[in-house]
Parts: sequence; structure tokens; C-alpha cells
Amino acid sequence: MQEVTQKLFFASDYQEGCLPQILDRLTTTNMEHAAGYGLDPHSKHARELIRTACGTPEAEIQFLVGGTQANEVTIACALHPWQAVVAATSGHVSVHEAGAIEAGGHKVIELPQREGKINAQQVEACAEAWETDGNRDHMIQPGMVYVSQPTECGTLYTRAELEALSAACHAHGMLLYVDGARLAYALAAPENDVTLTDLGRLCDAFYIGGTKCGALFGEAVVVPHPSTIPHFFTQIKQHGALVAKGFVTGKQFEVLFEDGPDGCLYQRLGAPAIAAAQRIKAALAQKGIPLAMENPTNQTFLVADQALLQRLDGRVEYGFWERVDEDHTIIRFATSWATDERDVDALLGLL
Amino acid sequence: MQEVTQKLFFASDYQEGCLPQILDRLTTTNMEHAAGYGLDPHSKHARELIRTACGTPEAEIQFLVGGTQANEVTIACALHPWQAVVAATSGHVSVHEAGAIEAGGHKVIELPQREGKINAQQVEACAEAWETDGNRDHMIQPGMVYVSQPTECGTLYTRAELEALSAACHAHGMLLYVDGARLAYALAAPENDVTLTDLGRLCDAFYIGGTKCGALFGEAVVVPHPSTIPHFFTQIKQHGALVAKGFVTGKQFEVLFEDGPDGCLYQRLGAPAIAAAQRIKAALAQKGIPLAMENPTNQTFLVADQALLQRLDGRVEYGFWERVDEDHTIIRFATSWATDERDVDALLGLL
Amino acid sequence: MQEVTQKLFFASDYQEGCLPQILDRLTTTNMEHAAGYGLDPHSKHARELIRTACGTPEAEIQFLVGGTQANEVTIACALHPWQAVVAATSGHVSVHEAGAIEAGGHKVIELPQREGKINAQQVEACAEAWETDGNRDHMIQPGMVYVSQPTECGTLYTRAELEALSAACHAHGMLLYVDGARLAYALAAPENDVTLTDLGRLCDAFYIGGTKCGALFGEAVVVPHPSTIPHFFTQIKQHGALVAKGFVTGKQFEVLFEDGPDGCLYQRLGAPAIAAAQRIKAALAQKGIPLAMENPTNQTFLVADQALLQRLDGRVEYGFWERVDEDHTIIRFATSWATDERDVDALLGLL
Amino acid sequence: MQEVTQKLFFASDYQEGCLPQILDRLTTTNMEHAAGYGLDPHSKHARELIRTACGTPEAEIQFLVGGTQANEVTIACALHPWQAVVAATSGHVSVHEAGAIEAGGHKVIELPQREGKINAQQVEACAEAWETDGNRDHMIQPGMVYVSQPTECGTLYTRAELEALSAACHAHGMLLYVDGARLAYALAAPENDVTLTDLGRLCDAFYIGGTKCGALFGEAVVVPHPSTIPHFFTQIKQHGALVAKGFVTGKQFEVLFEDGPDGCLYQRLGAPAIAAAQRIKAALAQKGIPLAMENPTNQTFLVADQALLQRLDGRVEYGFWERVDEDHTIIRFATSWATDERDVDALLGLL
Repeated sequence: MQEVTQKLFFASDYQEGCLPQILDRLTTTNMEHAAGYGLDPHSKHARELIRTACGTPEAEIQFLVGGTQANEVTIACALHPWQAVVAATSGHVSVHEAGAIEAGGHKVIELPQREGKINAQQVEACAEAWETDGNRDHMIQPGMVYVSQPTECGTLYTRAELEALSAACHAHGMLLYVDGARLAYALAAPENDVTLTDLGRLCDAFYIGGTKCGALFGEAVVVPHPSTIPHFFTQIKQHGALVAKGFVTGKQFEVLFEDGPDGCLYQRLGAPAIAAAQRIKAALAQKGIPLAMENPTNQTFLVADQALLQRLDGRVEYGFWERVDEDHTIIRFATSWATDERDVDALLGLL
Repeated sequence: MQEVTQKLFFASDYQEGCLPQILDRLTTTNMEHAAGYGLDPHSKHARELIRTACGTPEAEIQFLVGGTQANEVTIACALHPWQAVVAATSGHVSVHEAGAIEAGGHKVIELPQREGKINAQQVEACAEAWETDGNRDHMIQPGMVYVSQPTECGTLYTRAELEALSAACHAHGMLLYVDGARLAYALAAPENDVTLTDLGRLCDAFYIGGTKCGALFGEAVVVPHPSTIPHFFTQIKQHGALVAKGFVTGKQFEVLFEDGPDGCLYQRLGAPAIAAAQRIKAALAQKGIPLAMENPTNQTFLVADQALLQRLDGRVEYGFWERVDEDHTIIRFATSWATDERDVDALLGLL
Repeated sequence: MQEVTQKLFFASDYQEGCLPQILDRLTTTNMEHAAGYGLDPHSKHARELIRTACGTPEAEIQFLVGGTQANEVTIACALHPWQAVVAATSGHVSVHEAGAIEAGGHKVIELPQREGKINAQQVEACAEAWETDGNRDHMIQPGMVYVSQPTECGTLYTRAELEALSAACHAHGMLLYVDGARLAYALAAPENDVTLTDLGRLCDAFYIGGTKCGALFGEAVVVPHPSTIPHFFTQIKQHGALVAKGFVTGKQFEVLFEDGPDGCLYQRLGAPAIAAAQRIKAALAQKGIPLAMENPTNQTFLVADQALLQRLDGRVEYGFWERVDEDHTIIRFATSWATDERDVDALLGLL
Repeated sequence: MQEVTQKLFFASDYQEGCLPQILDRLTTTNMEHAAGYGLDPHSKHARELIRTACGTPEAEIQFLVGGTQANEVTIACALHPWQAVVAATSGHVSVHEAGAIEAGGHKVIELPQREGKINAQQVEACAEAWETDGNRDHMIQPGMVYVSQPTECGTLYTRAELEALSAACHAHGMLLYVDGARLAYALAAPENDVTLTDLGRLCDAFYIGGTKCGALFGEAVVVPHPSTIPHFFTQIKQHGALVAKGFVTGKQFEVLFEDGPDGCLYQRLGAPAIAAAQRIKAALAQKGIPLAMENPTNQTFLVADQALLQRLDGRVEYGFWERVDEDHTIIRFATSWATDERDVDALLGLL
């Protein structure tokens, strides 16, 4: 049968182009003339839309190209030379950015994680350890906390948890930064109670992910109080992160944040991915295939035995996570804005 | 009249989206599933096409997003810590990258330019000055020469000049790097005798510009001998310059370098821009408006008096270059793949 | 009584000037004329003496000023940009260098320590984790292992342990670097079986500490195979770590490594410090005051109760380490080449 | 004859140990116990003495080890990431620090020099060029001016010139930094009208050179308003520039700045060097040997012909500067606190 031999793609959420609405907009506006470097009307409009959505009327918003770039540039520009960023051991900046934060001159102080998260108590203990150490002038100062929403494990911080983290940071003179690479999938998760305005209210900087959330590329870095990062534009240029045709990113975020009858696209685009993930999780539960960890977003981490891996082999692209033992492997199915429900049907048929 | 009140855009060559062929390809392939980080078939194919076009079968080719990024990352990765890059005082890396090269740890040794160019004698003198200085172990070593083709002034290196530069570099253990941000306009200029295979033969690294040459974004960094830059992929990641959806850039360069009945698009796309620039230059000559400097590519630098500036005011977007005196200003008209011939007509009518 | 009111100094091993032999040499040679930057005969002689002592006839030896500088410069110069250094969580580079390694661009991968040490199995696991990770091209590569001899806890690596670490490093393409800030106290400890020639044979770089071992200042960085760090001299200059009057350091290491009837001074100078530390440890044992951890070198870490702290108060300078609970605190007594036996007597009288 | 065969040393001013008063102090205080890292009473006293001498009661003063280190650390810590330092093409930071400033992330904007100096007009033009450039957000901002007193050519800034430079800097939001590697020889020159209090009043940071001015090593960085460089201590540690036995430098500057019947030693120690240089210059004039450039301090740059070079050969160590033509070479005779008048006699006999 055709359907069976066609490969199913659940390896990641950045494997297709972009939402058709974005491609349409790029097409219809293609030959418009515009100023470069994000100074064009589309970028300006997109910034206004994001400011409104986040409740941050004064925010500086810069469009960057990718997530590691957003982290590297924002963290380097927000920290002083004598400061470090604090992150979970599982944080993207800790393990999967090829040492980009350190290449920018800053230590990543890694805290033990629980389901991909760190908490306010850990942050306070970390800050107090530095503050009360007699040798602290010989030590790097924790200057910022980095968390991801959703986390690298697909889990979510609750509003109360983020509020506690924010309070802990600010009580100790630290900045709170949220990596929102997959933020649309958090916003679309029924369990989620953290809104864009919560991020705008609690964070000193965060980015709204586009690449994994339906854009061709692009992340919107939001700095609610611009004085947090002086000369950000020039520093972005210095990091090689300023694009000449900034309007290409601006147009995409314009599409994502324009208000429609059902709210803006960014708030809605993750829903099908969450629904698909829930179907997968339900099917796994039904078949007694254990999850490696629970989470309410678009990634499903499961413990596959050899028999299952053989059934998937050659038919499904999935993410390899970790070998548990000879017969068990943790793998990941990622759904996204691009996931076709028929592909989910086909995947469930293979489980 | 409608045509007169509509604004004319000659400010730069990165003010519109992209060639329609590129948009078509992105559209028709939008929902294809592909591996991330440039490991997809489109990127691989584009690399093969570029290798063939440049006569560099072994070359490592990495797609980056913009010109400053291409310069910053490639130079930082190719130089040793104790080495500097040598460039014209007018070089993009010298003045218009916000200190990105130095932020990466390397000095830019600036040599006096003539029409935007430096020559082999200067390079040799620079290398020999270091080699013969008794204090050279206390001095940064010139490790690479940076030139642009076309230069920031729109002028072109001849093949003989590039051969001499390449020989001078290699005689003194230096690398030759060419910034090809506007390379398509060099290739399309009748005066040009430097081909892609010349670049492949003479350079240790160069990039083929996409952003200013009809792509939505993207530059192809070509390293003819991959050992010149070890672990380039990881270093690109570390610089925050690796994009998840690498296939978006790959598809664009695939379109630009696919062979057609008249050769590949990249070889042809600059021709209308050159023709338009020639029409502008001829009109200026006819009207006795002096050029600030001659060049055979898509940028026209002219000395405008106040009367001309007033005629252009509000009707034409152009590039401001430099005030000469109270009554004279150097300005730039840039044409591009996107220039409409009717706009050129209208501009000529205003001169 | 005079002796009781005079303060006793056991806070650290860098609180006095230098061995009288060193001061004598500086005095008698003070008005000699010499070349700068370590190119003088004394520095050359000192290098030869160290090469002989370490069994490394080809070694490049550079004299730096302090321990953090030696670590920062050597690690930055030996690592490639895509590499990290692996160290114990208690390593000096991990906690007490104000982020110097990261400011130089490199991550410190921290491994759990046991009595201040890490072992070959941990190093192998760390290397293999990177080698076998499907995402390793997105990850920093472990490129060097950093250990201290003695460790920050005063413990010693055995020869067998160092051999295993060296083998693990070299099996995985990593360098082994030993921080010898207090190396003289290791060499003088009866339990020690690691010689200078062992270090020369097993390490890719190490430094022989002067500052804490009787010199006015200065550390000798030894690179057994000079090609390990190209252009080291220029890189030292670039780090601001080259001193004009290099002969001042050279003369000191000449004194420390000149052969005498009982071997060289560096091999002997730690013995009285070890003897003094043993007397302190014996007295603590006798009085039932527990050690926080055992070690055979010049630092004694003990758990002091409030009564003891009161007896010491105002009379003894000691190092504060960590509060255990309301009534117990870990403190450190450090002895050194400068410790006066009568001060030890007086200290024991207070315990 | 003994006197003739003994070599004469005029190559530099860092070729001998230190002033006997310094060695005496190090000797008599050698076994004192003191806190580390410059927190000891000697360092504190030395700081007070320097604050008084410079009329900067609030100044932060940090003792570093050498001149390149003082420049590299102070400039890196005082500049923001988006800023560059402006210096003469002949400035030490421009040519003889192996790219240390750039390795710290900052561009050195080089201005043409005249007798080693730059002036306020040049600085203003440089600042205004940036301020008025439409592309300035893509350009590095001139954030500091670096000058040396005396300059690398031995010339002096007048008080009026420094006041103009200071005013130009502050009018454009830039810092003024003075490299005083040879400051004692400026202070001792009869032509000099720039005092330590002038430096304290006009500069945002400067360093008082010890290494070339009679100390064993050490430079005192003075920051009149400490808020200019936040967390300077920790940043010094991070640069590997903090020495454990800071008291060794502190004691030396205590000796240099203690008030005596004839003022402090630092004000007086350069006088014999200046007198010796004047004798040399007078003798050259008398014999018709031309100077390469005039200056009133301790360096004499002369144009030597082959005959003279042969007379000096093997008898005098001097500094090679630059070959002029086949028969003429610019060489340097440097005098210092350590110059013996009889050696000057012998040198004059050879001219």
C-alpha cells in the first residue's frame, strides 16, 4: 500500500518550510521596496503587534535568525563580563550550543534539573552561595537565570513557578531570561497557564520562537525594558546576527501576530500539534508502551523495545534520545504545525 | 502624474524580497520533510552545483545567513589566535561591521586603498615588515588578506591582480579570502575577467553572496581545501550561525546554480543591473554630472550639487555617501536584479 | 606573655615574601644587565635545570606570574575553539578563577569529585559520551583534562592514577594538564609517588608552582612537546602575561632548581611544611578534633566547634572553609616553607 | 683595557633589577605575614600615597605586573563591547602588544601620529565622523583615547595638549587613558609641565609605570572615579592578572611614593637618566651625528652611519630601530635609573 511505504516524519519540528499564510505574505509583498536591517514598516508593525501581545509597550524587539543565535547574542549582551548565566544541566545553552555561551565569555552554572526544570529555591541557593562566600570577589557572579518554556523535556513551568523564579532573580539582582524556541506549543497546551503577558511581566528578556513554530526562520527577542541591553542593535551587528533583509523576518512575525477573529496565529498554530501528541500518548498508554517522561506539549518521549524499533525501522523518522539497556531505547516523536493527521493515523497503526 | 509621485528606489541592492524562481521553489517544496542543519538533499545538491561551478571538487561549503556573519565566522575560524587579517581601509570588515572581527579576537590591519583595492605589493610589504621586525614575536602576525569582489567602491580586481594577491599571500604563509557579497554583479560586468573557477583556484576561502544577489537571504562560504578550517560546522554552531532549517538556504542556492540553457542563474542575474547602471552612468556623463569614482558594476557614485539633490528629494531613495563641500555631496544609486527599467527611465528624467 | 599575644599565621601559604636564598640571589645579581622577556641567561639556565629535573629535554618552558594566569593562558592557548576543559567541580578553574577560562572562550565541563580528585573512568565516560552522541557536532568537545597536584583538598594523585588519567586522555585525543600551584608540598609528602619526571612523561602541559612554594612570585609552565602550543610566546604577550624583566622569575627558578648536595631546593623546601602539618594533625587526633578530610600535604581541614573557634579568635589567622551547623565550622590551617616551628608549638597550645 | 672590553648597556630601561631602596624594603619585610591579593597594609598604604600624590582621594588603584597587562586589562574593563580605543599608529597598543586589545574584543582605531603624538583636533574629528555617520549603528563607537606619556618616541604631551585631549574626549563621551610606562622620565624632564595631579584631574584612567622606572616589576593603575570600571578586582582576577602576593608590588610602590626630604622617590628617580640622555644628545650634536627625532626624555634616537655602528659593535648594546638606507640606521640609546655615569663616559668615547 502506498501509505505504508511512504515514510512518516516525526523526528523534529523544524523539518518543513513554513505555514502557508507566511509563504503567501512573502509572495504578495515580494517586490515591495523596503529599508534594510529591520527598519521597514513590516518589522515595525510586527514589533507593535508583539508589544501589544506581551503587554510590554516599551519593549525593544529584535528579530534574529535562530534559537542558538538568540540565546548567544542576548545572553552575551545582557551579562556583564564578571557574570555567569545559571541553567539546568539539560538546558539548551548547557549542552547543545557547542559552547556558544562560553565562547562569548560567560560561564554556564549548571543546576540539577527535574523534568527539565529548575526552581526558585535552587536559584536562591545559588545566589546566596555566591553572596555569602568570603571568596566571592574571586568568583563569577550569577547574573542571569536561563529557562526554556517549554523545556527541552517538553514540560512547562507554571505561572506560579515562573513568578517565584522571577522574584528570586530580582531579589538577588539577577535577570530572568526565557528561551521560547517552542513557545507556541506551550501556549497551545491546555495545562499551560503562562501567557505572553506573563512573560512580558516576569522576564527581563525572552524570545518568541519562530523557526520551530511555523516560520521559515526567525525568533523575536523581547526586552521589556530596553535599558537592560544598551546598544543592542550595534551589538547584534557585531555578533554577525543582523540581517540586511530584516523585513523577511518582520513580515513573518506580522503574519504570526496579526489579530484575527480567533486571536493571533501564534496563539493557535500549536493546537493541532498538541492534539496529535495527545493521540500518540493515548495510544502508547493503551498499548502499554511506557513514556520516558510525561509532558503536555508536542514532544513524546517513550521507551521503545527492540520489537517496536523494528516496526518503525525504515517507516518512521524519529529522534533517538538515549539507550537505556540492550532491549530498551528512549526515542522521541515530535509533532508540529506541519503534522498531517493521516500521518499520525499511520504511526499509530505501527505502534 | 502617477509615475512622478511614486517613489523610485535606488538606495541599495537588498531592498526587495527575492527572484521569483526562488520563491517558486520555496513554495513548491514547502511541505517536503527534510533533515535539519543543512544535511538535507537540497543543500547537498546545491553544494555539488557550487563545487562544479567553482572547480573545487573537494570544497567544504557552508550556507550562512548574511555577509557580516560570513566574514566574522569565516575569518575567526580560519585565523589562529596570534594572527590578524589585512584589509583595505575601505573594506567592509574595517568599517561597517561594528568591530565584529575584533570582537572575535583579531586585529584588522588596514592598508591604504586605491579605488577600494589593495595590491600584491602592499601585501608583500606588510608581510615582510612583520617577518623582518626584530620585535615580531611581540606583534600580531598578518595571517590572511581580505578583499571584496566587487569592492565596496564597485570596482573589480582583475584576474592578474587576484593572481598576484594570491601568490603574495601564499609566498608569505597567508590565506586569501574574498568577500563576494555582490559577486553576481562582478560576474555580469563585461569588464570582469575573474570567474568562479578563478576564485576556487586562487582563494583559501570566499563567499558567494546571495542576499544582495537575488536570494531572500544567504551566503555560500566556499573553502576549497576543507582542512583550512577544521570543525567548521561546530564552530558555525558555536558562533550562533547555524540555522535549523538549512534547507531554506540550500534550496535557494540550488535555484541559483542549477544549469539552464543559458548557464546558471547566478551567472546571469546581474546583467540587467549592470545594464541599468550603465544607462545611469551614460546619462550622468551626458549631463555633465561627475562621477565620484568610476566602476563597472551595479553601484554608481556621483557628485550631486544642491540643485540635483532638490530634484531627487522625495522622489528617489538613494544612498548618502559623503559631503564634499557646501554645494556638493557624493551619493550612490544602486541597481539590482530587482530594478525595473521604467524606474530607470523615471530616474533619468529627473537628472 | 609576648608569645601569646603575638598573632599566629596559618591562613595560607602565600603570606610571606620568599625563601632567603632567593632574596640573596636577587640582591647579588640586582645590577646585572640582562635581555628582557625571559631571553636572559638566568632564565635560559633555569629552563635547562627544569628540563633536566622533568626529563623533558625538548620542553618549552615559560615563566608566568601567578597560578590563575598560568591556567588561563595555558588552557586558552592549548585548546582549539571547539574544545572544552574537563575538571573536578572543586577544581580551581571551576570555582575560584572568576570565570577566566570561560572569558577565554572555553567551557569547563565539571565532573563530580571525590576528595578533590577525578579518575580515568570518569574521563573516559565523558569522552565517550561526546564521541557517541548523535548530536556531537552541536556539542563542545572535551579537549583537555585539568587536575591539580596536590588537589584543592590537599590530596594527592598516585602515579598509577595519573598514568590512568594520561592514558584515558590520550586514548581519546585529549590533553592532560596538571596545576602544580602547591607542587613542592606534594613532592615533599612521604606518601607521594609522583615525581617531576612522571609529570614530564604523562602530561601535555603542567606548571611548577613558585608563588606558594617559596618564590616571591612565578610559575613555570612546562610543555614537554612544544608543538602542543604553537606561538606560545606571542600568545603569552597577547594575554598580557609576558613580563619585561623576565630574568626576575628566571633567577628565582634557577635558585629553586640548582642542584645541591641534597638535591634541588624545590624538592626539599616543602618538607618542614609537611612536618608541621603532621604535628598539627597528630595533635588534633589526640584531642579528638575531627578532620574534615584526610590529606598528606600542607593543608589541614578540621571541624572546629565554637569553643575552639573562641580559643583561636584574635590569636590565629586561619582559613574559613564552610559552616557545617550552628556549632561546627570547617576551617583550614595551612603551613608553608615559611612556617616557624615555635608558631606551631603555640598553635598546638591553643587547640 | 678592562673598561673598553666590558660591554655597555644602553638597549633598554628594563635590563636591571630594581632600585636598592626597593630591594632593602623587600628584604627587611620579607618574613612579615600579610593578607593576599593586595589587601595587605603595605598595598593599602601605597594606594593612599598615590592617591595623595595624584590628588585623587577617591581613586581605585590596582597594582598590575606589566605594561601590556595594564593596558589590556584596563582597556577591556573600561570599554563597552560596542566601543573601540583610539590611538596613534605608533602607540604601544597599536603595534607592540601582539593584538592584545583586539584579543580582548576591541578595535584599535589608529590615527596618524606626529612625533608619537595625536591631538585633540584629531580626536574630535574621529568622534564627529562616527557621530555624524548615517551608518554609525553599524560601526564601532570610539569610546576611549589612549596616549602615552612620554610617548613611544620619548616626546611629551604638554599640559595644554592633555587638557585639550581631555576636553575633546569628555565632550564626546569618551574616556582618556594615559599609558605611563616611563612616567618617571617624563616627571624628571625639565621641559615637562604635566604633573601627577594633572593626570589625576584630566584622565579617566592611567597607569604609573614601575617596571621601567626602578621597580622589580609592577604598574599602578589609577582610576580617579571608581565607577568608571565596575568590579575591577574581579575582572582583574578573570584576566589572570591578580597576584596572590600583592604585597610585593604594594611594598615597591610604598617605597616609590613615600615622602622624603626631597619629595618622593618616583619624582626624583628619573633625573640621572635625563641628565645622562642630555649628555649623550649634546655629544651627538657636537660630533654632527643627527638625531632621528628630538625628545626631552631618556631615549635618544639617532641616525648612525656604518662607521659608528662598527665602533659600537660588540662594545655597546643598543636598540635597533629602523634601517634608513644602506649606510644609515636609526638606533636607540636608552638610559635609566640604573645607568652608571662611567658607562656614559665610555659610550661618549666611542661616538
